[in-house]
Amino acid sequence: MRLLLIHSDHIDYQAQKKTPVAEEGAVLEDAFDEALVAFCAVESIDEEDIEDVIGQAVAEITKTAEQLKTERVLVYPYAHLSADLSKPETAKKALQEIETGLKTIGLTVKRAPFGWYKAFTLSCKGHPLSELSRTIVPGGSEEAKPAKKEVTH
Amino acid sequence: MRLLLIHSDHIDYQAQKKTPVAEEGAVLEDAFDEALVAFCAVESIDEEDIEDVIGQAVAEITKTAEQLKTERVLVYPYAHLSADLSKPETAKKALQEIETGLKTIGLTVKRAPFGWYKAFTLSCKGHPLSELSRTIVPGGSEEAKPAKKEVTH
Ligand SMILES: [Mg+2]
Repeated sequence: MRLLLIHSDHIDYQAQKKTPVAEEGAVLEDAFDEALVAFCAVESIDEEDIEDVIGQAVAEITKTAEQLKTERVLVYPYAHLSADLSKPETAKKALQEIETGLKTIGLTVKRAPFGWYKAFTLSCKGHPLSELSRTIVPGGSEEAKPAKKEVTH
Repeated sequence: MRLLLIHSDHIDYQAQKKTPVAEEGAVLEDAFDEALVAFCAVESIDEEDIEDVIGQAVAEITKTAEQLKTERVLVYPYAHLSADLSKPETAKKALQEIETGLKTIGLTVKRAPFGWYKAFTLSCKGHPLSELSRTIVPGGSEEAKPAKKEVTH
């Protein structure tokens, strides 16, 4: 799983058009201020142990939210973070379970719908911890560390 | 090279803090309306033939700008698109050459500085072509195609 974690002043999104794998019953339009936006791409390798990957993702997002002193998280599907995606059904279920896991910990969580083209506006705060990326692999908690040289761009 | 191409109503950025590889002499604060934002991560494999990768990137960005009927491009360094980055000096030079290449074609181009923490606000239009990702590899023009299953999230 690839994660892009952005500490934002504001995010809003509006679902505009379904793809063939669009999730039904999700919140099609929402907004959040002072939140951690967790852009997520579920990858094919994650299917080897999806529950483990989900657990690592929940832990990583929770740790980052604590560092940023926010209790507000938006889980946002973002296929463009990976060129090797999981099956859509796996991703949809994983994102729902990440939402549930974060709520169980006590965070205030929203989740953007999977499989829709969405308009969005995002403000990134710009401090050194306001943009982080992580690669999570099944069974590989030591891989859930900052990407090599990640602060150089 | 990983590219994330976003058709935006508006983007603005403000450089806030240098990293150790911060570019000097770049535009530290700017804004653009109705533009294609080209988020770019230069990868280690690109160093095998960086000029080829630069040429492919310029062609890909130009083609997308034409499809979107915009002549305005913001080149934006985005390390978080890859976990295997090139040397910073390679990336800095490549991004400058992409800017020059796009200007030579006649596009109106701005470029955000490399190696700075930046605040930004981005609005994505949300139509089906408004978010595209590409993976470019040296000598592999057939690889510069949509990522597998890219429309499914
Ligand atoms: Mg609009």
